[in-house]
Amino acid sequence: MSQPGTLALEERPVPRPGPGQLLVAVRSVGVCGSDVHYFEHGRIGDFVVNSPLVLGHEVSGRIAAAGPGVDAGRVGSRVAVEPGTSCGRCGQCKAGRYNLCPDMQFFAPPPVDGALAEYVVVRDDLAFDLPDSVSDDDAALLEPRSVGLWAAAKAQLGPGSAVLIAGAGPIGLVNAQVARARGATMVVVSDIAPHRLAAAGRNGATSAVLASEVAGLGQQFDAFIDCSGAPPAIAAGLRALRPAGRAVLVGMGPDELTIPFGVVQQRELTITGTFRYANTWPAAIALAASGAVRLSELVTGRFALADSEQALRSVTAEGVIKSVIEPWH
Amino acid sequence: MSQPGTLALEERPVPRPGPGQLLVAVRSVGVCGSDVHYFEHGRIGDFVVNSPLVLGHEVSGRIAAAGPGVDAGRVGSRVAVEPGTSCGRCGQCKAGRYNLCPDMQFFAPPPVDGALAEYVVVRDDLAFDLPDSVSDDDAALLEPRSVGLWAAAKAQLGPGSAVLIAGAGPIGLVNAQVARARGATMVVVSDIAPHRLAAAGRNGATSAVLASEVAGLGQQFDAFIDCSGAPPAIAAGLRALRPAGRAVLVGMGPDELTIPFGVVQQRELTITGTFRYANTWPAAIALAASGAVRLSELVTGRFALADSEQALRSVTAEGVIKSVIEPWH
Amino acid sequence: MSQPGTLALEERPVPRPGPGQLLVAVRSVGVCGSDVHYFEHGRIGDFVVNSPLVLGHEVSGRIAAAGPGVDAGRVGSRVAVEPGTSCGRCGQCKAGRYNLCPDMQFFAPPPVDGALAEYVVVRDDLAFDLPDSVSDDDAALLEPRSVGLWAAAKAQLGPGSAVLIAGAGPIGLVNAQVARARGATMVVVSDIAPHRLAAAGRNGATSAVLASEVAGLGQQFDAFIDCSGAPPAIAAGLRALRPAGRAVLVGMGPDELTIPFGVVQQRELTITGTFRYANTWPAAIALAASGAVRLSELVTGRFALADSEQALRSVTAEGVIKSVIEPWH
Amino acid sequence: MSQPGTLALEERPVPRPGPGQLLVAVRSVGVCGSDVHYFEHGRIGDFVVNSPLVLGHEVSGRIAAAGPGVDAGRVGSRVAVEPGTSCGRCGQCKAGRYNLCPDMQFFAPPPVDGALAEYVVVRDDLAFDLPDSVSDDDAALLEPRSVGLWAAAKAQLGPGSAVLIAGAGPIGLVNAQVARARGATMVVVSDIAPHRLAAAGRNGATSAVLASEVAGLGQQFDAFIDCSGAPPAIAAGLRALRPAGRAVLVGMGPDELTIPFGVVQQRELTITGTFRYANTWPAAIALAASGAVRLSELVTGRFALADSEQALRSVTAEGVIKSVIEPWH
Repeated sequence: MSQPGTLALEERPVPRPGPGQLLVAVRSVGVCGSDVHYFEHGRIGDFVVNSPLVLGHEVSGRIAAAGPGVDAGRVGSRVAVEPGTSCGRCGQCKAGRYNLCPDMQFFAPPPVDGALAEYVVVRDDLAFDLPDSVSDDDAALLEPRSVGLWAAAKAQLGPGSAVLIAGAGPIGLVNAQVARARGATMVVVSDIAPHRLAAAGRNGATSAVLASEVAGLGQQFDAFIDCSGAPPAIAAGLRALRPAGRAVLVGMGPDELTIPFGVVQQRELTITGTFRYANTWPAAIALAASGAVRLSELVTGRFALADSEQALRSVTAEGVIKSVIEPWH
Repeated sequence: MSQPGTLALEERPVPRPGPGQLLVAVRSVGVCGSDVHYFEHGRIGDFVVNSPLVLGHEVSGRIAAAGPGVDAGRVGSRVAVEPGTSCGRCGQCKAGRYNLCPDMQFFAPPPVDGALAEYVVVRDDLAFDLPDSVSDDDAALLEPRSVGLWAAAKAQLGPGSAVLIAGAGPIGLVNAQVARARGATMVVVSDIAPHRLAAAGRNGATSAVLASEVAGLGQQFDAFIDCSGAPPAIAAGLRALRPAGRAVLVGMGPDELTIPFGVVQQRELTITGTFRYANTWPAAIALAASGAVRLSELVTGRFALADSEQALRSVTAEGVIKSVIEPWH
Repeated sequence: MSQPGTLALEERPVPRPGPGQLLVAVRSVGVCGSDVHYFEHGRIGDFVVNSPLVLGHEVSGRIAAAGPGVDAGRVGSRVAVEPGTSCGRCGQCKAGRYNLCPDMQFFAPPPVDGALAEYVVVRDDLAFDLPDSVSDDDAALLEPRSVGLWAAAKAQLGPGSAVLIAGAGPIGLVNAQVARARGATMVVVSDIAPHRLAAAGRNGATSAVLASEVAGLGQQFDAFIDCSGAPPAIAAGLRALRPAGRAVLVGMGPDELTIPFGVVQQRELTITGTFRYANTWPAAIALAASGAVRLSELVTGRFALADSEQALRSVTAEGVIKSVIEPWH
Repeated sequence: MSQPGTLALEERPVPRPGPGQLLVAVRSVGVCGSDVHYFEHGRIGDFVVNSPLVLGHEVSGRIAAAGPGVDAGRVGSRVAVEPGTSCGRCGQCKAGRYNLCPDMQFFAPPPVDGALAEYVVVRDDLAFDLPDSVSDDDAALLEPRSVGLWAAAKAQLGPGSAVLIAGAGPIGLVNAQVARARGATMVVVSDIAPHRLAAAGRNGATSAVLASEVAGLGQQFDAFIDCSGAPPAIAAGLRALRPAGRAVLVGMGPDELTIPFGVVQQRELTITGTFRYANTWPAAIALAASGAVRLSELVTGRFALADSEQALRSVTAEGVIKSVIEPWH
């Protein structure tokens, strides 16, 4: 895309992998809300599309070529691609928080091109081998699953946890599945749209409620994961936490947020924001392979690369959960 | 029991619950290896049977009466009983580690009587209400399940973890189930007896191997949980850990243990002993109610109170996993 | 006090310690901002003074008598008193978070009487023996020091940490001292009142700045501890944190608080409220005895029990840091 | 060195820094026990000196040249050098545990050359700028200080901690200093040699005892840090821990170690091995700059590069704590 609302298919030369890099033939790309936001508005916060940008950061593929210094035996392997390349040398990277690396190169936030293409180049260690039991679409969706794994870890979900998840979009549903995979036994998903709640029950929720019903649930949750970005949902979620509860803010929202100060103090609540994820791909693949988390069921539409605009426009339609684009068609 | 190998049924008056206490009519008591050990040898370590002792600490029942200061509305409720009463005032208790309370009163280690009786008295907060979906036998087995939850927490098992469990007795099987409930995707159970391995696959293990095969597995585990108490199994388990791996020693064994010192250092392994559990009952009940952990399948024999000796003698027979005694028969 | 602004000295019988309790002859009581708030406004949040209330919860004394079941050998010992009695049986207590016990009985929040008296009764385990090197006044101030220890633990301060502390009142100064005791090497204290900053340098701060200067400091802090309760100070403190920084909200303020949502997410900040403290007394005493934290220097005024109203009114005067009341005068 | 016991001074060309690298003119190199061990025995465990090897990994210097892609403005800066270069791409590196990187290139374990030379080449991010208040010798000793910081973090030392440290060599003394910097108030150092204990009191210990006296101290320590590698000292240290205590094994010893199994279980002790350190340099520098940890006092001898053999042979002499070699002489 070069302008908001305008998407074009361009012929570009197939890129060549440099030292330590791989060329990956893309099999499946998930359409994320952030792709749609760039497409519609041309920016997210400080990230502005000033020159043509390739969207897409949820990617699976097959290794097509190996750059210098990379094991050529990997060519041909099916892989899931982690979309961010961190420097590996700054304090955040060396402390294991590479998602906070100030020099991160991440697919699609401008000016770095994304993966909505026939081929992408990635660093060797960011292409993870896939077992046969994980499909191409499922592998593309390891990215949102990573978002869920990261949030669930920050929320310290464990056996017997009671968790409230606000927002029944793809990220909310992924979080519900991951919560169950960590042993949570009470997983309540809320949304303002009744039609979205139906999917929650098929994706890990033990119950699904309208956002307006959350206040009536009392203080019974160990953790709250916001996937809505909606300030009223966040305020209600915080009030629904038990003492010592944890709130994890995943969904993006307005610049400022009002929280119930006294409640946070008297119950010693902890509030954490999340930004992407770190070190989640191996676990995400293992969960997908074991069937503990099933994501390809979320896919409600598949599109060819030439139909990418249609894919982007599809995501707000009722009944659509997740659209994927398969460039090999 | 009063002497090793001698068990007698005694008539005693029904005890009266004191302030803050409940009288519980016992429904099911699991037979633990430690009960058998006291029965056969009259001691475990420093705990010696010097006067007649009631065995049994895995207990469920129904509340029969409430002492002063306890909500009488609880009478009639089905409950699982946590078998240890801690002081609540020492530094360990106040830090949340009540299992390490020096004044702990625990069922059956002498001189405190256990629960192999028609009635027991327990502190109000140690009798946990049960949902209908948890059977009496399953509720008695919340105690070994707590052992598993405690070990899995110490082992920091999470989504995608690879764990090796040594020992396919009841505690090993419980640990395998709990590991899965926390999201572990590779759960290998080892034992020296082939006939015990068959049960592992039905109780959470993704594979079951002979102890002699562990050395051939390489260093691929994030965690090792020993439920065997056997020094060779522990040494092999430590060597099978990846760098930064965690070992949790649950099974009791000899007074001293030899560990591979250099391996522990070069891989920065962590070794933790466990002693009972703390704060595990609510999660254990929630997991049982959700079906994430199913324990009543472990029960291979049910006995009347009068047949307790037979129950104790049963546990070493081939094919026996877990025996329970039901005093209401 | 019975009404806002009215304080009276009453003769009451010396209380008798019950089972497990001690009678303590009070030596020193620190005047806390919350005492002043009850005195002036008759309430803090949901805690309302509806009947005569004894203020005071920062207490040291000497054991005068022992109740049944308590070691009589303790009589005569100098002790610091932890002012809250928790139930020891609820889930929060058993998890080591007794400060969140719903049945907490705490000195001075109504309707529980405080310690501004010649004698108080406390549970045995809440009276901690003092070494000679800790004075009576210093021992009374173990309470605010506990607030600081709790905040510093939540802030995960360690060797080399850079911490910003908003508010240079007694709690802010205590936090600065505790930060240094944990190894923090950059301890910046801010306040809106220049005359308060002078004390910061004598109490652990490596620098002291006006609140208006915080925005100019950039994002260089690992942790932020708010002891001001002032929303603008909290917003500025959050913005001054590095990625992965921790904010701890100690100071009480308005019911609602506005935080920079995007900043919290993009930097993965963690915000935690604190409510009193748990398990801090032994460490507080050890630090006082070692001289690592010196609090009696904070005492700027000493008053007799009859002059308590004067003590309460003193705390807002310029130059006053901490007033203590010594009932034995 | 090329053979055990043989050390030679060689002329080699000044190395050129590659992309992302710096050339550092060495100012001070600390002599470590491992250097002495290679010199005397030609091997440590699996690391064998098969070809000429430059020893030395405790290094400070001044940046002499910058390779391609490195800020040339750094030339002339005084720096401390972290001696290990990790890959930045493996699972251990990305999880923040780069000390466990299987592809680590570390000064002096063969076949990688160390820093006992006039110049060394290091990766840009491994040379840390020094404030003026940290001397060259002190900066070289940031390496052993890092060992201490790593151990103290694993031991979870905090305000009021009671810690036992076995071994009063340089590493033991560094650990004592770091323990105090983290707020430990009881720091007992033990050794078998009385003459070494004298230095402990000047370096953080609150008391120093003969190893034979440890058994008499009872179970009063929160943590035990072994810097001796001696099995009897480790066994005694484990037995001196309170329930829930942590043991950290720093000193290298025999291949196998016998531990008191029942004690580890009944007290739920945690035992962790350490291997070097990760992310410790910034804190180590901050502590040195603040004076919280003073290491240059440990230096009992300074040698020219030509006298390196003498420096290596010096370390076992009575009265010697730490020898440094200054190649610029």
